[in-house]
Amino acid sequence: EFAKLDHHRMLRQGFAEVVFCQGKTVEQVLAIMNRLAEYNRSILATRATREMYEAVRSAVPDAQYHELARLITVERQKPAVDNERFILVMSAGTSDIPVAEEAAITAEIMGNEVKRVYDVGVAGIHRLLGQRQLIEQANVLVVVAGMEGALASVVGGMAAKPVIAVPTSIGYGANFGGLAALLSMLNSCAAGVGVVNIDNGFGAGRLASIINHMR
Amino acid sequence: EFAKLDHHRMLRQGFAEVVFCQGKTVEQVLAIMNRLAEYNRSILATRATREMYEAVRSAVPDAQYHELARLITVERQKPAVDNERFILVMSAGTSDIPVAEEAAITAEIMGNEVKRVYDVGVAGIHRLLGQRQLIEQANVLVVVAGMEGALASVVGGMAAKPVIAVPTSIGYGANFGGLAALLSMLNSCAAGVGVVNIDNGFGAGRLASIINHMR
Amino acid sequence: EFAKLDHHRMLRQGFAEVVFCQGKTVEQVLAIMNRLAEYNRSILATRATREMYEAVRSAVPDAQYHELARLITVERQKPAVDNERFILVMSAGTSDIPVAEEAAITAEIMGNEVKRVYDVGVAGIHRLLGQRQLIEQANVLVVVAGMEGALASVVGGMAAKPVIAVPTSIGYGANFGGLAALLSMLNSCAAGVGVVNIDNGFGAGRLASIINHMR
Amino acid sequence: EFAKLDHHRMLRQGFAEVVFCQGKTVEQVLAIMNRLAEYNRSILATRATREMYEAVRSAVPDAQYHELARLITVERQKPAVDNERFILVMSAGTSDIPVAEEAAITAEIMGNEVKRVYDVGVAGIHRLLGQRQLIEQANVLVVVAGMEGALASVVGGMAAKPVIAVPTSIGYGANFGGLAALLSMLNSCAAGVGVVNIDNGFGAGRLASIINHMR
Amino acid sequence: EFAKLDHHRMLRQGFAEVVFCQGKTVEQVLAIMNRLAEYNRSILATRATREMYEAVRSAVPDAQYHELARLITVERQKPAVDNERFILVMSAGTSDIPVAEEAAITAEIMGNEVKRVYDVGVAGIHRLLGQRQLIEQANVLVVVAGMEGALASVVGGMAAKPVIAVPTSIGYGANFGGLAALLSMLNSCAAGVGVVNIDNGFGAGRLASIINHMR
Amino acid sequence: EFAKLDHHRMLRQGFAEVVFCQGKTVEQVLAIMNRLAEYNRSILATRATREMYEAVRSAVPDAQYHELARLITVERQKPAVDNERFILVMSAGTSDIPVAEEAAITAEIMGNEVKRVYDVGVAGIHRLLGQRQLIEQANVLVVVAGMEGALASVVGGMAAKPVIAVPTSIGYGANFGGLAALLSMLNSCAAGVGVVNIDNGFGAGRLASIINHMR
Amino acid sequence: EFAKLDHHRMLRQGFAEVVFCQGKTVEQVLAIMNRLAEYNRSILATRATREMYEAVRSAVPDAQYHELARLITVERQKPAVDNERFILVMSAGTSDIPVAEEAAITAEIMGNEVKRVYDVGVAGIHRLLGQRQLIEQANVLVVVAGMEGALASVVGGMAAKPVIAVPTSIGYGANFGGLAALLSMLNSCAAGVGVVNIDNGFGAGRLASIINHMR
Amino acid sequence: EFAKLDHHRMLRQGFAEVVFCQGKTVEQVLAIMNRLAEYNRSILATRATREMYEAVRSAVPDAQYHELARLITVERQKPAVDNERFILVMSAGTSDIPVAEEAAITAEIMGNEVKRVYDVGVAGIHRLLGQRQLIEQANVLVVVAGMEGALASVVGGMAAKPVIAVPTSIGYGANFGGLAALLSMLNSCAAGVGVVNIDNGFGAGRLASIINHMR
Ligand SMILES: Nc1ncnc2c1ncn2[C@@H]1O[C@H](COP(=O)(O)O)[C@@H](O)[C@H]1O
Ligand SMILES: Nc1ncnc2c1ncn2[C@@H]1O[C@H](COP(=O)(O)O)[C@@H](O)[C@H]1O
Ligand SMILES: Nc1ncnc2c1ncn2[C@@H]1O[C@H](COP(=O)(O)O)[C@@H](O)[C@H]1O
Ligand SMILES: Nc1ncnc2c1ncn2[C@@H]1O[C@H](COP(=O)(O)O)[C@@H](O)[C@H]1O
Ligand SMILES: [Mg+2]
Ligand SMILES: [Mg+2]
Ligand SMILES: [Mg+2]
Ligand SMILES: [Mg+2]
Ligand SMILES: [Mg+2]
Ligand SMILES: [Mg+2]
Ligand SMILES: [Mg+2]
Ligand SMILES: [Mg+2]
Repeated sequence: EFAKLDHHRMLRQGFAEVVFCQGKTVEQVLAIMNRLAEYNRSILATRATREMYEAVRSAVPDAQYHELARLITVERQKPAVDNERFILVMSAGTSDIPVAEEAAITAEIMGNEVKRVYDVGVAGIHRLLGQRQLIEQANVLVVVAGMEGALASVVGGMAAKPVIAVPTSIGYGANFGGLAALLSMLNSCAAGVGVVNIDNGFGAGRLASIINHMR
Repeated sequence: EFAKLDHHRMLRQGFAEVVFCQGKTVEQVLAIMNRLAEYNRSILATRATREMYEAVRSAVPDAQYHELARLITVERQKPAVDNERFILVMSAGTSDIPVAEEAAITAEIMGNEVKRVYDVGVAGIHRLLGQRQLIEQANVLVVVAGMEGALASVVGGMAAKPVIAVPTSIGYGANFGGLAALLSMLNSCAAGVGVVNIDNGFGAGRLASIINHMR
Repeated sequence: EFAKLDHHRMLRQGFAEVVFCQGKTVEQVLAIMNRLAEYNRSILATRATREMYEAVRSAVPDAQYHELARLITVERQKPAVDNERFILVMSAGTSDIPVAEEAAITAEIMGNEVKRVYDVGVAGIHRLLGQRQLIEQANVLVVVAGMEGALASVVGGMAAKPVIAVPTSIGYGANFGGLAALLSMLNSCAAGVGVVNIDNGFGAGRLASIINHMR
Repeated sequence: EFAKLDHHRMLRQGFAEVVFCQGKTVEQVLAIMNRLAEYNRSILATRATREMYEAVRSAVPDAQYHELARLITVERQKPAVDNERFILVMSAGTSDIPVAEEAAITAEIMGNEVKRVYDVGVAGIHRLLGQRQLIEQANVLVVVAGMEGALASVVGGMAAKPVIAVPTSIGYGANFGGLAALLSMLNSCAAGVGVVNIDNGFGAGRLASIINHMR
Repeated sequence: EFAKLDHHRMLRQGFAEVVFCQGKTVEQVLAIMNRLAEYNRSILATRATREMYEAVRSAVPDAQYHELARLITVERQKPAVDNERFILVMSAGTSDIPVAEEAAITAEIMGNEVKRVYDVGVAGIHRLLGQRQLIEQANVLVVVAGMEGALASVVGGMAAKPVIAVPTSIGYGANFGGLAALLSMLNSCAAGVGVVNIDNGFGAGRLASIINHMR
Repeated sequence: EFAKLDHHRMLRQGFAEVVFCQGKTVEQVLAIMNRLAEYNRSILATRATREMYEAVRSAVPDAQYHELARLITVERQKPAVDNERFILVMSAGTSDIPVAEEAAITAEIMGNEVKRVYDVGVAGIHRLLGQRQLIEQANVLVVVAGMEGALASVVGGMAAKPVIAVPTSIGYGANFGGLAALLSMLNSCAAGVGVVNIDNGFGAGRLASIINHMR
Repeated sequence: EFAKLDHHRMLRQGFAEVVFCQGKTVEQVLAIMNRLAEYNRSILATRATREMYEAVRSAVPDAQYHELARLITVERQKPAVDNERFILVMSAGTSDIPVAEEAAITAEIMGNEVKRVYDVGVAGIHRLLGQRQLIEQANVLVVVAGMEGALASVVGGMAAKPVIAVPTSIGYGANFGGLAALLSMLNSCAAGVGVVNIDNGFGAGRLASIINHMR
Repeated sequence: EFAKLDHHRMLRQGFAEVVFCQGKTVEQVLAIMNRLAEYNRSILATRATREMYEAVRSAVPDAQYHELARLITVERQKPAVDNERFILVMSAGTSDIPVAEEAAITAEIMGNEVKRVYDVGVAGIHRLLGQRQLIEQANVLVVVAGMEGALASVVGGMAAKPVIAVPTSIGYGANFGGLAALLSMLNSCAAGVGVVNIDNGFGAGRLASIINHMR
């Protein structure tokens, strides 16, 4: 018995257990998704290859694949969404979009209105200042950035709402697989910033969703 | 001119600029606190020595010093507090209390009801399970832990609300100044956890307060 | 002469030299296994590819391959096993199973009763608490976990028997190839935990076996 | 309330909660020891300063201080000890003795016969070979070494019993606070070695004691 | 003979050898400064303690000490300065001023007009935007920042002139002695940024001066 | 909308936004280059694969590919170049040439005369001394070196002009992906050296160009 | 001109420049080897692929390829060798042989008698003690070991002659690409050990040869 | 019994066991030195404080203290020295002299002629070239350097004899306690360089002495 599904998670935390596909065989992913699909209306698998998706779809025909974000989703009934309270997902560069999409789609399947503003890195600060209004209106902000990850600090200083920072492994050399952006975000001189793991768009989307549902 | 105070911050983010005392001279801290005290009802300084406090008190007599947390606070008027929505600050060990107190007092001065549960590390899991009700009632959770920081993951799996994890430098050997707990928290298998810098009680208290004020 | 086999090891330590296949050519593995098979009833090779196995099998027809665990075993006579004293091998996630199996099969070939409990990570602590009885009955525990490796601390706090912790490289981002789980386990606030190298299921199985044979 | 003592630990794991003094105030240590002394016959505090000891002794007069090992012990009744099964604590150099003593005294207060062999580092291998008989007779071995920590591998290859390796921070330069010895021990080519945290003599003594009590 | 002064340096690179005082005895610093003062009109010593200064002043009465910057200077004749081409030294926080002053005074003694803008970190971006004109007018920019060092990227994106970035060790926790700011600056998404060592105000001032003298 | 091009950059900083191709899809690179080519006379893309180039060329026929340097350039009108002020690009070894070429071509397309001196590492210092005249004549120097990166220090001590140091990931073992050369260059005992990211030839070429245009 | 060969090296240091093939194109390797072959009797290229060798052989027909060691050699006249003074190359495991062979062949082409003793790691110390005579007779020792690299310390304590230690990247998990063995060897408690880069068999062979030629 | 002196070392390796004082109590150092002085003509203790020396001198009146090098020596009879074969100890800066002296005095007490050339770092390469003759005449070279440690590579390229490189912890910022110089020396592009631990003057002096005695 290779998996003990946490079927209680939907009750306890409002969303079914999410499948982390990395390190699993295609057969394991298929079996787990199959069982989850029996008990839940919406399910999510992260770090999924297309091959895994093909296997899942044969058993769960309404499964969808999000190429860039490497997500498999099943969404049988749109959750109720409060359009007034949106999550703003921002990326510093075009190359950070896969991680940003992982966050955005995660938040959407968990019942949130999501707006996206991509490629507004600080090297051209006017691009960011041009989004000031959106930044002030957002209820929660997810900031995805690689290289030096400075975007999190600047947004953190502009927003009055919580900022979830996601370092990415985009960059090279002394970026050390995302370490540069990670340390940068942890040391942000702006308060009100919480950080998740490198490239962990899913974790950011999940946390943003929890916060966005607070009343 | 050694300091450009961000007097706009109160308006923009709901609390005056907070003074980070480390690396500053006593004179600089005094001058900055003095100016902040002119314009704001509540002010806060972190990483303050008793000597800095003595200097500040001579100019701002209603300043208070929190020894363990190394905070200077001035609070001229209690902010309105919603007692229904409390922040739960937890620590894994007794040695983590200074950082936990930094978080708790920060949240209090920013207008939050705070409850404290200290010394509930996972080595005696029944201590933690005994707090299950409080964990479920809390509106936001701050989990402070050194050594291996496992408390964040366990609490993260029990709570439906956002968890802010604060790694501490408590421990020795391969703890590497808090790195062990930091990496542990970033890699938490529980989703819905945002991490702040090592020993950064202030950052956690600030983020918790922002989230706790969301409606 | 590329290998000086330690034929004395069986006498000195109760099991023949185990072949570490990584970095060896197929020819070298074949020659070494061939010689070991002459002198020993049970032999083991770790980190073996299927190609290595095919070569070995042609010379040692009773060799077996364990795909997931990447082990080659030859077991000509079942060792005597004390069914009362079992080793419990636990994994935090499904993705950690290959390392867990390396530990379990190693312990089995060395003459131990092994029970497996997989996918009981701390994010859903009830899954773990549901295994309390097994944890209390086990004679030695092997805990295999990636990501933040918190399972070792929680089990370490529940068990009265020795716990061997195995960090895995499962995870991503700031997991840094298993470093996060490794540091976490070394800094465990639970005493009575001994740690082996990242992904070193073999080392854990071997140590567990030695302890399990103590009278 | 700064401490939630785990009074259940004696029952669950055979020895009372051990106090980690680092990061605690003298008052906290005093209060915790006082309460533990009420309920338990044997208690132990690690990383204690002489000042802490003086405070504890005023309330618990039968407390003792072990200068080198920085331990406070209270032992009201010698536990039964099986003299046939001894734990062998070895150190590579004279400078590693404080950590070795932490391990040895921990094991003694937990009811074990302990033998000590210090200063047998591998640079003069005859010193070690001269201890071969003791190494073969020992029931559990604790190997304490700084610098390159090679002693663990050599002893690990000689002994048929479990070896607990303790890296120390003794050394300088690229020893990086014990990292060199730690990595060395984790990568030991000898199987049957479990590693604890840098300078963690207590952890080694505790684990050795658990194993030594197995029947 | 403990020092081989590079008396040729003035000719080769336009300024006498600069004395790095760390790791030297007071006597060594005194002797070296004495000899340099014989041959040069302007001399500079970095990382100097007040005690070193007192010794030097007894022999070189026109030596001056800059407390914050820990510099000793001797300047017998003001060098010609082009007031049109100024170097702008910026700091992110008040705590970074000692390093910024090291850069500014170094540049001044090497014959440059220097302007200072301190405490304009990105958490309150309007403070920085308020300096836009100065940033555009500067001929060379030195950006000194600790914590996450994001100031370098934002200024790098605003300026058309070269930016020298100096990471400082100001911060705590996962700042790791300036590593966070260093990696951040090296990975800056703004091109045209050259980085010097952590806390190396001198190196930045020197490089800025060389560039500022280009025609 | 996956890219917000910074069309203002040409005006603000004298050259159009440069496309960092790593982490982007071929379609994204094509679309971005297409848009940039509409508005600018010279454009540059870094870290481009040949496949990206083929796509770009179909839309922008005058695009060129520089295999070794992995650059795509479009240059519709040669910029005016001051032949008196040349940038000297030096490499320590033959293996560093791809990075050196990235720097050289970047500087050329930005309107600079560039001279190249490759394979003059310090192990045969006469090779370097033979270039003394060129080193003294150069207006700006770019030093590209892997392994221990010592070339930057030696050139830094010989030149009176600014030196931009580029560590490369060439080497093996404890080079750790360029870390050795990076740290070496940051700690250079020669003043007047600014460092860019590992393998960042583009950044060095850009900074050299900015400096070389100063009057 | 991509390479400035150091034709003076033979005179200055007794052997022609050695070609480091990593990071070079096949064309570059071919051209360099061709030119070296014109001027020298013996030449050596390291980290060469078979494809590089094929190209070289077409131009230099007496070139030879050493598969395991990845070396290309040309040796037109056997150098005089003193058979009394031999270099002993030892490896801890079979997996370390490629690096050991790189050292051995390098030493041979530079005119040394070389003896090889492979697979004598410390886990079975009798294997090593069985070589005591050879160790005492050797004039220089090269010790090649991965994992924890303890062999260097033990041999260093047995030999009266210089020991060159070569850490290898063999191992896994917290071996971190050879870092464990490297730190271990640098921190060796045996004096008289010099360390070279990870996997740098060539460097060890070269240094051993220089020492072995001393009179 | 806290020390098992290796009295056999003099016979096996030509010099008595050297005492590493760090981490030992004054009493331990005294007792060990006392015993060594009974059996040996020359003895050496490293990392000794003045207080340790005072204690030793009371029992061993002919002991001497070398303040800068922190060595205690006893030398009852000058060893025979071959003045033709000298060891050249070089330092890059004045601040590296303590480590250089540790090497030089170690070599002297072991019976070697030693010449010293200090403060010849590569930033003023003419200082080094001025020593070319001495470098060519030396029989063994010890190169001591902090910061970027480039001196080892340049000397390694000039000398035909073995070079022992000693990285020092002199420097600041991203020197990381000597890591920068260590990595630099390990990655030296000059072959024939063996590296010892950071600040390990003793190890370098010992290895140089062994090599210098080869015939
Ligand atoms: N090789 C490079 N290294 C560092 N930054 C670069 C490089 N090439 C382009 N850039 C910068 O990267 C940014 C583009 O990021 P993106 O939005 O992902 O295209 C721009 O600001 C470029 O100036
Ligand atoms: N991208 C992700 N990052 C971190 N955790 C994840 C991710 N996707 C799923 N998870 C969590 O990973 C756990 C599943 O691990 P496993 O048992 O190996 O499937 C669940 O607790 C999920 O919530
Ligand atoms: N400065 C030093 N660096 C490295 N090893 C040393 C040093 N001084 C003495 N040693 C060695 O350290 C060992 C002594 O360790 P210990 O038993 O703790 O005194 C002996 O093998 C010495 O050869
Ligand atoms: N998976 C493993 N991890 C660590 N050590 C191992 C492993 N498998 C075998 N070994 C040990 O590695 C040594 C063999 O190394 P080698 O001579 O290269 O074959 C033996 O001492 C084995 O006990
Ligand atoms: Mg962009
Ligand atoms: Mg506690
Ligand atoms: Mg699972
Ligand atoms: Mg000793
Ligand atoms: Mg400020
Ligand atoms: Mg070359
Ligand atoms: Mg072997
Ligand atoms: Mg000097």
